[in-house]
Amino acid sequence: MRIYQDQLEVRTHGKGLYEITGEVQSRVDRARAQNGTVTVFVQHTSCSIVIMENADPTARRDLEEFFERLVPEDADYFTHDSEGSDDMPSHIRMVLTRTSETIPIMDGKIQLGTWQGIFVFEHRRAPHSRRVFVTTIGE
Amino acid sequence: MRIYQDQLEVRTHGKGLYEITGEVQSRVDRARAQNGTVTVFVQHTSCSIVIMENADPTARRDLEEFFERLVPEDADYFTHDSEGSDDMPSHIRMVLTRTSETIPIMDGKIQLGTWQGIFVFEHRRAPHSRRVFVTTIGE
Amino acid sequence: MRIYQDQLEVRTHGKGLYEITGEVQSRVDRARAQNGTVTVFVQHTSCSIVIMENADPTARRDLEEFFERLVPEDADYFTHDSEGSDDMPSHIRMVLTRTSETIPIMDGKIQLGTWQGIFVFEHRRAPHSRRVFVTTIGE
Repeated sequence: MRIYQDQLEVRTHGKGLYEITGEVQSRVDRARAQNGTVTVFVQHTSCSIVIMENADPTARRDLEEFFERLVPEDADYFTHDSEGSDDMPSHIRMVLTRTSETIPIMDGKIQLGTWQGIFVFEHRRAPHSRRVFVTTIGE
Repeated sequence: MRIYQDQLEVRTHGKGLYEITGEVQSRVDRARAQNGTVTVFVQHTSCSIVIMENADPTARRDLEEFFERLVPEDADYFTHDSEGSDDMPSHIRMVLTRTSETIPIMDGKIQLGTWQGIFVFEHRRAPHSRRVFVTTIGE
Repeated sequence: MRIYQDQLEVRTHGKGLYEITGEVQSRVDRARAQNGTVTVFVQHTSCSIVIMENADPTARRDLEEFFERLVPEDADYFTHDSEGSDDMPSHIRMVLTRTSETIPIMDGKIQLGTWQGIFVFEHRRAPHSRRVFVTTIGE
């Protein structure tokens, strides 16, 4: 059994979902692991890792709209706003979603369901470069 | 150290929590791992894996009611509704909960707390067959 | 590749975030793993593990206030209240956040981003002793 570690850089340009399924699979390919797991971890507190429906873009837009309403930018009780009105909501949206996901690998392929994709969920308005750490453990 | 992979099929009949703690432990038993971790991953975008209080059924009913109110089926801004009114809410409820959990194993037993159980959280009304991938890594 | 398992006991005194980043790193140090992952798992259903911004305490206070409002203690439809008004909200807040996180290790260090810390998120008012299981897999 071996460990293989790699990093992705994901450039985002505003709030929304950015698919990284192909990049994760390519790191698993390099690891040459036939069976095991891959852990995807994002090194930030203002974006998330989520697994989401990857076929219909309207599903992603509705998801984004839901989070806009659940964690509004203009909540009057927020005191942490030094970086702007999207700062505190970005941390809350991150906590409500995920920082890591661990996905099984079999026969060299990540075992996602038919409609599952892996996404970086960006919660900030401005462009960012996001680091994603990919750890494959397998044999 | 070894990897052991298995799948569960969980038949659901409507929204709610379906406990799979015993099935996960039985896969760990087959893996004959004394120490390590087990990762439970559900291969769908309209149901979740959650760890929840497994003693009192009223806690589960209150949880289900909370999610009905937090992500209502009749939100007027949803555009992704081709599969019915429970389609888009199911994706959102999944993103707000979890697709995978990684649980420690010691002395051959999954190390849940006294009141913890592992559940598939079904978000669709219609009956479904849900695939859960169970990966044991241990020695 | 080896597995190293350890437990932390975290004493909480009311709702809020309690940082355990240093304790997790110290367990990784003891494991003498240079590369791999560490899985942090909390063995309770009324508190969570979250990764959160660890620089500015106002961010944590705003997060706590958000959860007070999202899952109020006085929801009239709760039936699971035998342990008091903070009982059912604690389970819901736990399901909305996380029970485990898996963090990469490289060169012997957990690979958190600049602003990331690992926290126990306590959802109960009364003091509690919380058990956190730390599993290092690495080489």
